[in-house]
Amino acid sequence: MAAPTPLLKDELDIVIPTIRNLDFLEMWRPFFQPYHLIIVQDGDPSKTIKVPQGFDYELYNRNDINRILGPKANCISFKDSACRCFGYMVSKKKYIYTIDDDCFVATNPSGQQINALEQHIKNLLCPSTPFFFNTLYEPYREGADFVRGYPFSLREGVPTAVSHGLWLNIPDYDAPTQLVKPLERNTRYVDAIMTIPKGTLFPMCGMNLAFDRDLIGPAMYFGLMGDGQPIGRYDDMWAGWCCKVICDHLGLGIKTGLPYIYHSKASNPFVNLRKEYKGIFWQEDIIPFFQSIVLPKEATTVQKCYLVLAKQVKEKLSKIDPYFDKLADAMVTWIEAWDELNPAGASLANGKK
Amino acid sequence: MAAPTPLLKDELDIVIPTIRNLDFLEMWRPFFQPYHLIIVQDGDPSKTIKVPQGFDYELYNRNDINRILGPKANCISFKDSACRCFGYMVSKKKYIYTIDDDCFVATNPSGQQINALEQHIKNLLCPSTPFFFNTLYEPYREGADFVRGYPFSLREGVPTAVSHGLWLNIPDYDAPTQLVKPLERNTRYVDAIMTIPKGTLFPMCGMNLAFDRDLIGPAMYFGLMGDGQPIGRYDDMWAGWCCKVICDHLGLGIKTGLPYIYHSKASNPFVNLRKEYKGIFWQEDIIPFFQSIVLPKEATTVQKCYLVLAKQVKEKLSKIDPYFDKLADAMVTWIEAWDELNPAGASLANGKK
Repeated sequence: MAAPTPLLKDELDIVIPTIRNLDFLEMWRPFFQPYHLIIVQDGDPSKTIKVPQGFDYELYNRNDINRILGPKANCISFKDSACRCFGYMVSKKKYIYTIDDDCFVATNPSGQQINALEQHIKNLLCPSTPFFFNTLYEPYREGADFVRGYPFSLREGVPTAVSHGLWLNIPDYDAPTQLVKPLERNTRYVDAIMTIPKGTLFPMCGMNLAFDRDLIGPAMYFGLMGDGQPIGRYDDMWAGWCCKVICDHLGLGIKTGLPYIYHSKASNPFVNLRKEYKGIFWQEDIIPFFQSIVLPKEATTVQKCYLVLAKQVKEKLSKIDPYFDKLADAMVTWIEAWDELNPAGASLANGKK
Repeated sequence: MAAPTPLLKDELDIVIPTIRNLDFLEMWRPFFQPYHLIIVQDGDPSKTIKVPQGFDYELYNRNDINRILGPKANCISFKDSACRCFGYMVSKKKYIYTIDDDCFVATNPSGQQINALEQHIKNLLCPSTPFFFNTLYEPYREGADFVRGYPFSLREGVPTAVSHGLWLNIPDYDAPTQLVKPLERNTRYVDAIMTIPKGTLFPMCGMNLAFDRDLIGPAMYFGLMGDGQPIGRYDDMWAGWCCKVICDHLGLGIKTGLPYIYHSKASNPFVNLRKEYKGIFWQEDIIPFFQSIVLPKEATTVQKCYLVLAKQVKEKLSKIDPYFDKLADAMVTWIEAWDELNPAGASLANGKK
């Protein structure tokens, strides 16, 4: 059933926030070298990132971001890996894969190295099934199918916009869980891919994530984090909640499960707690907000959906904290900047049904 | 995190439709012998089922069902394994495990025999998390937890009403898929348990299924199948759709995934096609019907919810086929019979919030 995997060499960019770890690219060389890399440096622009020979890359630091976006650069986080979303915006490719520099190649239970990127591409090229749950998981995989009782009219599926990969070794826990379970490691390799059902939110992690820029790119905004902001570590979560409600509205799918990467290092739980603690309160209101969002019929493009979201964030979340007022403005700026850098996509997006 | 597994010896009945396979109980002896069995014979009452020595069991044939239920016996299917739901009704235990006689003990990837019943009990005793998706699957398992971004207010979970287990070897396919893929075998052991999100329907298979009678029993009606009915092989599906919308309404959870059993034999696809073909059409209307069901606030017990469902089936599905008119009546009869045989449960159910 599975088609032979195309490499999509000319259709995919790998976006990486600051690379602090010199082993990182060496370890991924066999898998990443055929692709173009976009590196977005989150901190001091005077520091130089040394990219090993043989990689085809472009690198943006804060000065570049300011130069390219001008006053609109204020929608891009500073001193936080959330700045990576600038890379999504300047890419000209259809697909993006983004990965953190503490994520290494994992091995499957047979001891083989996992080509995470290849699996993400397979996920993105294969339809999603958000309207009904298949108990044997991904129905399009070799050796699987739709089970008895699955409506035939839903078996064609819908286009997949996002592929969310998982992590062996260090799980993606919040600071309180890190503090309580410092020794916990994820050793369970779950051989599954599944579509997250329509109407269900999930915590999207940006560590090992691929998406279709044409389908969902303008919603993949990682918000305002880091320097000068009251919150961190909610960049990918925010993007995930926005993407999910927009995918649900537009009839697009989000997959989670395979591929795994090996997450090598837990970040400091004390530092994380400081970044997260407001988010831990706020998410109790943010989740019901996203759960109750209804996008209007007229919102037929990602951009239009996103601007409706921004408006609702301003109306309904600003009362939690003035931060959300600022975030709502930044969401609008992000879309303006996106459309400026992607004029074809903007007109396409505004023109297509 | 996982509690030591209680056997629940005096709180669980195993319900089995007609046992045609003499090896079946021998293979399960180490796991089933401590429990009480309820065998419900689906066909000719004059045929005797030989139960091997050492098992504690009661057996009901059609004459028994007619004697116990009187005119209400017409809600129990004849010559179809759907009759098993009579066993759910006569049980006096809190938990039920039901399994088909062509399901054997499976082995996990390490080659160990899987104690399916023990895993079902673990699933039922552990909360469910239907309101938000956890990307590392069951958060309560050893070595797992809720990931970053999972709201803390939802981490207590809700009671689990149903545990839906899976099948290695012969997958649970409909007749068309069986015909197209006669050689397909499920060899993928997915080491996961998950809660099916609120608002999402799934195809519930009765081959390897456990549930909490107190929480959901009256909704576990397997409908009218077999002799004299225009449809077969939708008994468990029907029960699954009804259970899911009621669990969603009452704030109960349904888990799927582990444990696996080994499904030894594919049923005849030609026979299956004859039983199924109307269902294949009808499910295209039934699924949207269940997806749009809204149960009223006053429906605070399973029985009340189920009677509302029966009414709506009559109103909205009878136009598809007169069969649904009959089915809606049988649903009401089923509840009457259930309450007659379970007077304590009936009053409890009507009294509790």
